[in-house]
Amino acid sequence: MYGLKLAGLEAQEKRTEFKVSDITVGRDFLVIAGPCSVESEEQVMKAAEIVKKAGANMLRGGAYKPRTSPYSFQGLGRVGLQYLKKAGDAFGLPIVTEVTDTRDVFLISEYADVLQIGTRNMQNYSLLVEVGRCGRPVLLKRGMNATIEEWLNCAEYIMKEGNHDVILCERGIRTVETYTRNTLDLSAVAALKELTHLPVVVDPSHATGRAEMIGPMSLSAVMAGCDGLEIEVHPSPKDALSDSAQQLDEEGFDALMEKVRRTIKFRESLYE
Amino acid sequence: MYGLKLAGLEAQEKRTEFKVSDITVGRDFLVIAGPCSVESEEQVMKAAEIVKKAGANMLRGGAYKPRTSPYSFQGLGRVGLQYLKKAGDAFGLPIVTEVTDTRDVFLISEYADVLQIGTRNMQNYSLLVEVGRCGRPVLLKRGMNATIEEWLNCAEYIMKEGNHDVILCERGIRTVETYTRNTLDLSAVAALKELTHLPVVVDPSHATGRAEMIGPMSLSAVMAGCDGLEIEVHPSPKDALSDSAQQLDEEGFDALMEKVRRTIKFRESLYE
Amino acid sequence: MYGLKLAGLEAQEKRTEFKVSDITVGRDFLVIAGPCSVESEEQVMKAAEIVKKAGANMLRGGAYKPRTSPYSFQGLGRVGLQYLKKAGDAFGLPIVTEVTDTRDVFLISEYADVLQIGTRNMQNYSLLVEVGRCGRPVLLKRGMNATIEEWLNCAEYIMKEGNHDVILCERGIRTVETYTRNTLDLSAVAALKELTHLPVVVDPSHATGRAEMIGPMSLSAVMAGCDGLEIEVHPSPKDALSDSAQQLDEEGFDALMEKVRRTIKFRESLYE
Amino acid sequence: MYGLKLAGLEAQEKRTEFKVSDITVGRDFLVIAGPCSVESEEQVMKAAEIVKKAGANMLRGGAYKPRTSPYSFQGLGRVGLQYLKKAGDAFGLPIVTEVTDTRDVFLISEYADVLQIGTRNMQNYSLLVEVGRCGRPVLLKRGMNATIEEWLNCAEYIMKEGNHDVILCERGIRTVETYTRNTLDLSAVAALKELTHLPVVVDPSHATGRAEMIGPMSLSAVMAGCDGLEIEVHPSPKDALSDSAQQLDEEGFDALMEKVRRTIKFRESLYE
Repeated sequence: MYGLKLAGLEAQEKRTEFKVSDITVGRDFLVIAGPCSVESEEQVMKAAEIVKKAGANMLRGGAYKPRTSPYSFQGLGRVGLQYLKKAGDAFGLPIVTEVTDTRDVFLISEYADVLQIGTRNMQNYSLLVEVGRCGRPVLLKRGMNATIEEWLNCAEYIMKEGNHDVILCERGIRTVETYTRNTLDLSAVAALKELTHLPVVVDPSHATGRAEMIGPMSLSAVMAGCDGLEIEVHPSPKDALSDSAQQLDEEGFDALMEKVRRTIKFRESLYE
Repeated sequence: MYGLKLAGLEAQEKRTEFKVSDITVGRDFLVIAGPCSVESEEQVMKAAEIVKKAGANMLRGGAYKPRTSPYSFQGLGRVGLQYLKKAGDAFGLPIVTEVTDTRDVFLISEYADVLQIGTRNMQNYSLLVEVGRCGRPVLLKRGMNATIEEWLNCAEYIMKEGNHDVILCERGIRTVETYTRNTLDLSAVAALKELTHLPVVVDPSHATGRAEMIGPMSLSAVMAGCDGLEIEVHPSPKDALSDSAQQLDEEGFDALMEKVRRTIKFRESLYE
Repeated sequence: MYGLKLAGLEAQEKRTEFKVSDITVGRDFLVIAGPCSVESEEQVMKAAEIVKKAGANMLRGGAYKPRTSPYSFQGLGRVGLQYLKKAGDAFGLPIVTEVTDTRDVFLISEYADVLQIGTRNMQNYSLLVEVGRCGRPVLLKRGMNATIEEWLNCAEYIMKEGNHDVILCERGIRTVETYTRNTLDLSAVAALKELTHLPVVVDPSHATGRAEMIGPMSLSAVMAGCDGLEIEVHPSPKDALSDSAQQLDEEGFDALMEKVRRTIKFRESLYE
Repeated sequence: MYGLKLAGLEAQEKRTEFKVSDITVGRDFLVIAGPCSVESEEQVMKAAEIVKKAGANMLRGGAYKPRTSPYSFQGLGRVGLQYLKKAGDAFGLPIVTEVTDTRDVFLISEYADVLQIGTRNMQNYSLLVEVGRCGRPVLLKRGMNATIEEWLNCAEYIMKEGNHDVILCERGIRTVETYTRNTLDLSAVAALKELTHLPVVVDPSHATGRAEMIGPMSLSAVMAGCDGLEIEVHPSPKDALSDSAQQLDEEGFDALMEKVRRTIKFRESLYE
C-alpha cells in the first residue's frame, strides 16, 4: 500500500523490535520524558531524576529548537547536548533529541541514542536520507498536516538508506479546533497497526498544549494501541523557556506514570 | 467561557444527569447501538435483538437519512420510525433517531426517546430551537468542521428554550487524513470535561468509517473519559443500504461489548 | 461527474440563464449588495439608495440571521422582510434574503425575489427540497467546509424538485489562516466553469471579513470568471449590529463599483 | 505585527526592490517559467526558448526534487543545474532553482540567480539561515499548511542573516477540496500587501495541479495585486517526469502570456 517496499506490513509481518540500551523498542512500553528544551545543567539533571524515579525509560530534551520566530529561544546547541548526555548517563537513561540540519547528524549521533525528526522537518528529505545513514534509531514525528501515506513514505526514505530502526510519533495535526494546540489523531495509531510493522508512540504534550489534558490523552493513547509515550516534564513548568503550558511537574508526572502502568497492564489482560 | 450561560461549567458545577426510561444518562454508561438506516422491520428487529443481548442500553436507527446525493437511499421515513419503535418496545430499548426538519420534530417526538441532531444540521438553529421545545432529550452531534466553541453554543440554543437534557456526541472532524472517513477528536472529550457539565458520547463508526477500527477507538474513547458510545450494528453489514463498511455484525459487537464493559470497570477502579 | 443528473455540464452544455425582474442572471453581471442585517427601515432604505446609485442590481439584507451564539442579534424576522421589500420596491431592486427554516419558505417567497441558503444550511436537505418547490430562484452558498462535489449535489437536491434557477455563491472555506475570516477559494470559480452550467457569484465580504480586502478580491473574482458579486454595504458600518468589520460604506462601494465595471469590460475585451 | 522586525511594513514602508540581472524585482512584473524538473539538456533548452519567446523573464527548473515517495524521480542534481544554467545563459534568463539541503547552498548559489525554498522546507530553519547568508535572492514558498504569520517569520529568519532580497510565493494550501491539488489563497496576496514590503508572486501550477486552470488563476492573481507569477512550462507536458498534468505547452503559454501582459497593463490603468 502507498507504494511502500519496506515500511508496510506487506514487506514484513513481524512487528519491528530493536534494542536501545537494555530496552527493546516495540516490545517494552516506551516512556520518553523530559523537558521541551535543555535550559541548564541543573534543570536537565533534575528533570532526569524526576522522570527516572517515576519510571520513564528514555530522556528527551531539545538542544536545537525549531521556533516560529527567529527571536525566540533557539536552544543551547552543543552545550545542551552535553548536559543532556550527562543527565542521561547519571540516571541510566538513553537520550532522545532533535536534529534539524544534515550537517549536525554526525555530531548529534555521537551524543544521542535516538535522533528525533520534528514535525516541521518530516518532509525534509535530505535530512531523512542522512539519518538513514547515521547508525542510530530515529523517532519520526508526523508533520502537522501530513497524511499517513506521506508519513510512512518518510519512514521509507530513512529505511531505504539501510536504517530500519524507525519509531513513528503521532503528535497532533492542525484542524479548526483552537482549544487544543493541535488535534491528537489517535485513530492514526490504530490505522498504523493495520499498515506498518513499525512501533508507534504518542506525544500528548504537543498535541494538546495543555498540561491538564496529558493524563486522559495518555491513557486513551495506550488503549488505542500505542507502543509508547513522549511526555514533556520540567522541574518547574512555569519557568520553562518554551512550551510552559504543556509540561508536567514532578507530582503530575508521578501520578500519571502510576496510571499509565496500570493501564498497560490492563491492556495486556484484555488482549491475552 | 464562549459566552455560555447554561451549557458551561460556570453555570453549573454538578454534571448533568437525566432519566431516559430506567437509564440515568450522565451516570450509567450509554451504549447506543443499531443500524445506520432502518431498512425493514426484520432488519431492525434483528439488530435490536443483537444489541440488547450484547448489552447496549439504547437502540439507534435512521428513518430520515441526510445523504450527499439526492439519488442515494433517503430512509423509510415514518414507516421506519414505526419499525424502530416496535423493535425498541420488543426489547425494552429506548430509541434514538435523527430529525432533520423543524416540521418533523413533533412527529418524531411521538416515537423517539432521544432526538438526534446530525453533523450537517449542528448549526441549523431553527431545528435546535424546535428540539429545545420538544420535551425529549437531544443528542447533538458535532459538526464535521465545528469548533468546540460553536458546538457548545449549539447546545446553548437548545437549552435556552428550556430543554436541558442535551447529550454531546463527538463523531470526527474533517482533516487531511483520508485513510479514515473523518478524524476522531478524542481530546475534545477531555476538553469538554473542562468546559461543560453535559454528558459526552463518542461515535467511532462515523469517525473512522472502518469496522475494524471501532474496537480500539471505543476503548480509547472510554479512557478519554466519555459517558457513552454510539455504534453502528447491522445483522448483515455487507448488505446494508448505507455505511456498509463501518457497521459491526453480531459477533463483532458481542466481542466489543465484553471489552467495553471491562474497560469501564477498569476506568472506575483507576479513579476511585 | 459526481453522480449529477441536472447540475453537471454533462446534462446541459448551455449555460443557465434566467430572468429576475429585468436582469438576466447568467448573462448580466450580478451585483447583489446591501447590509448584513436589516436593522431598521431607515437603514435599509438608505443602503438601497447607496447601492442603487453605485450600480448594484439586487438588494440583499438578512431578516433571519443564523448566529453562532443564541444571545447575538437574530434579525428582525418578518418586519425585516417588509422593510427590505419596501426598500427594494422604492429603488427598483429585486431582493435577496436568507431562509433558514422549511416553515418560512412560503412566507419569504412572498417577499423575496431570490432565496438565499446560507453556509451553515448548505446540507440542510429538507430546506433544499423546500426551496426546490418554492418557485423562486435560489442562491446557494457553499458550506464553510464543503467540497465542490458536495456543493453541486446540494444544487442537485434543489433542481431535482423542479427548480432549475440556482445560483452558486463561493463565500470562503475554513483553513488554517486566521488573518482573514475564511479563505476565498477563487479556483472554485474556475473549477465550476468546467463542472456546471449554473451561474457562480462570489462573496468577498464573508470570505475575508475585512473591508479593505473586498476591493482586490472583487476584481480578482471577476478575472477568475465569476458571474456576479455579493457585497455587504452599510450606511454606517461601524454602527452595524453584525459583521461591522466587513461592510463597505457609500464611498468605498462607489469606488469599488467603478473598478468592477471597468474590469468586467476589460474581461469581455480579453475573451472577444 | 507577528513580532517581525524586518519583514513587516512597520520596519519599512517602501516596497522592497532589488536587481536580478537587468530585472528590478518588486517593480518589473516577474514571470518565472520553465519545467517542473530538468530532465535533459534538450528539454530545458527547448523550454527556455519557449518561455523566452513568450516573454518570461526568469527560467525555473528543478534539479533537486523533493518527492513524496523515495522511489519517484529525484531530479538530476548537479548535472541538472549545469543544463539549467546553460539554458539560462543561452537565452539571457536568470535561473531559479530549489535548494533542499544546507550543504548544497554554496554549490547551488554558484549556478542559480535565485534560490527557491520549497513548500515542504518553509520551516526548515537551518536552511533558511543558510540561504540568509548565501548572497543570492531567495524565493520562499508558503508551506502547504502555513499561516501568513508563520510564513512571514520564515522570511524574517532569512532577513535576520542579512539577506533582505526575499520574494514570497503563494502556491496553495491544503483544504478539503480535492478537485484542485491545493487551494490557491489569493486573499493572501492582498493580505501580504497590508503586512509586508516584500514582493509576492503566485504559482498557479502547483496550487491547482490542472493546466486548464492556470489561465484564469493567473489573471485573477494579477488583479489580486501580485508582483509576478511562477508557471510550469514543458515542451511536451504529457512526457514530463513529474507534474505532467499541470504544465503548459508552448501554445498554451504563449496564449497565456498575451493575456497576462494585457491584464498587467489594465491593472496599471486602473490604479493610475
